[in-house]
Amino acid sequence: MSSLTGSITLLTGGAGGAKLAEGLTLLLPPEQLTIVPNIGDDDRFHGLWVSPDVDTLLYTLANDIDREQGWGLRADSYHLLARLAELGQPTWMQLGDRDIATHLIRTMLLAQGQDAQQVTTYLARQLGIDANIVLPSRATVQTRVHTALGELSMESYFVQHGAKPAVQKVEFVGEGLSQPNSACLEAIDNSQLILIAPSNPLLSIAPTLQVTGIRQSLLNSSAARVAVSPIIGGKTVKGPACEVMAACGYSPTVTGVAEFYHGLIDALVIDHADAAQVRDIERMGIKVLLTDTLMPTVASRINLAEKILSYVDVTFVQHKRRVVA
Amino acid sequence: MSSLTGSITLLTGGAGGAKLAEGLTLLLPPEQLTIVPNIGDDDRFHGLWVSPDVDTLLYTLANDIDREQGWGLRADSYHLLARLAELGQPTWMQLGDRDIATHLIRTMLLAQGQDAQQVTTYLARQLGIDANIVLPSRATVQTRVHTALGELSMESYFVQHGAKPAVQKVEFVGEGLSQPNSACLEAIDNSQLILIAPSNPLLSIAPTLQVTGIRQSLLNSSAARVAVSPIIGGKTVKGPACEVMAACGYSPTVTGVAEFYHGLIDALVIDHADAAQVRDIERMGIKVLLTDTLMPTVASRINLAEKILSYVDVTFVQHKRRVVA
Repeated sequence: MSSLTGSITLLTGGAGGAKLAEGLTLLLPPEQLTIVPNIGDDDRFHGLWVSPDVDTLLYTLANDIDREQGWGLRADSYHLLARLAELGQPTWMQLGDRDIATHLIRTMLLAQGQDAQQVTTYLARQLGIDANIVLPSRATVQTRVHTALGELSMESYFVQHGAKPAVQKVEFVGEGLSQPNSACLEAIDNSQLILIAPSNPLLSIAPTLQVTGIRQSLLNSSAARVAVSPIIGGKTVKGPACEVMAACGYSPTVTGVAEFYHGLIDALVIDHADAAQVRDIERMGIKVLLTDTLMPTVASRINLAEKILSYVDVTFVQHKRRVVA
Repeated sequence: MSSLTGSITLLTGGAGGAKLAEGLTLLLPPEQLTIVPNIGDDDRFHGLWVSPDVDTLLYTLANDIDREQGWGLRADSYHLLARLAELGQPTWMQLGDRDIATHLIRTMLLAQGQDAQQVTTYLARQLGIDANIVLPSRATVQTRVHTALGELSMESYFVQHGAKPAVQKVEFVGEGLSQPNSACLEAIDNSQLILIAPSNPLLSIAPTLQVTGIRQSLLNSSAARVAVSPIIGGKTVKGPACEVMAACGYSPTVTGVAEFYHGLIDALVIDHADAAQVRDIERMGIKVLLTDTLMPTVASRINLAEKILSYVDVTFVQHKRRVVA
């Protein structure tokens, strides 16, 4: 049990972020935590609306995730996809047979007039998840990666093209950009701690920050605002964060992460491997928690969550109490 | 090779009809035969548009059908369906993993603005089928079975409820009823032989006959018009034809089949098992071909097709030639 008692909001992307979300849900009562996943990777495949980061979060929290690959359902098969290929369809997006059930239900409920938040809540309940998952918008936001090969969706850039095409810029499109989910803004406004998960800043967190009102809510917040670096020792566990950061003018280092979040965060959690950059980050007015940030096991996820919560308690909450006293 | 050289149109339902279609396609050059499948069983499952009889025909002609059960793809798996059940969805409609690829593509192409005929042609080509499959309408026709349990779709009546609820009446709904596919009317008009496959008259053939113009084209036609009875020895190989015929006021016998098609056919093909009813049928002015009509093997399908074609040649075509001479 954490010593923090106020509400916590976690902004997160896919694999890395879902691991921290898992650690937090195993520590906290469900009503204390709101998880805001990335919807910028959402895309249509074979007529089905697929929400990769939301599904990675759902499958992780349901303990159904393929832990080896970090996405998809454990022990899934690919018979349907193989048949789609036989029938001449492009099948670079790996969708398992059991996984496709999620996309069928999502697409069906959306066609019946439910919005993405209602669908997410329904799927979470069906999966036995009691965590509070709140989308940044009930409408669509899509990340567009401009590359040497042209403008690509996030999944096309990352999965179809293996994150290889040189990135020129990243932009975000969709009605959702101007339609924040009020429940998301409320969660941020009511939080004692706003956490940004170790996800790709430009491709997984930026889509959420681009939704009208969300960045401003973070800027206005009196909560402790803490990001966890997805970069460890100049590399990422998974995904193209370094390449994309470099392409967008940020150093692919923990210092670059601090620069990206400058103004939005009070503290950055970095790995011991990056200890040499602590001063550079502190010079920006950002505090640093130096710890082990790799989360290969469930125990390590709980450990990191615990360390962050007690750090926030000591550094921000107790400090405030002393100031008030 | 058949001695008939003119065009042939086959009206067909699912399993039984598809077997005769298979026999005919193995005998005839593709340009000689037009196959008109039943679309009255079409329905939406999990948001996907499923066309059971069209798919049974496609899978049979592609030699992909599960020959044991007469529907679905051979050696298919059911992982997706099992997952849908875990997620709280009704899964009485048996849809295999590989089978669902067909429904995904159909639903996607329809959503992209193609019509059902274009989708069917696309699927046939992808499956390597060169037979000419022409839907009775490019729009929807749906069979509604009024039962003691209420009004049911055909698949709900047959699959979900095992054809057990007492049938009160059968009706047909959908925009397609008033929108015949011109290619279907042309095929009938240009045929030397119009064949009605051994399918359920009320549930598999009637939906096609109900489309504006199709019944009239049959009535007007100078072609030989020949039906094959789906009833053998007072029973059907598969499906509820007997129950439904009885409920709708027809004797569940070959004589009942002759009564149903009275005015639309010149001859009825029946099994030796029903030889005792030949006179009753002939008394209606309908000729009878008495033969083996069970088609458990591919060889028996070719045999039946051959027998029908040479019967038509001797009885109708050569006869006409003699009359003309």
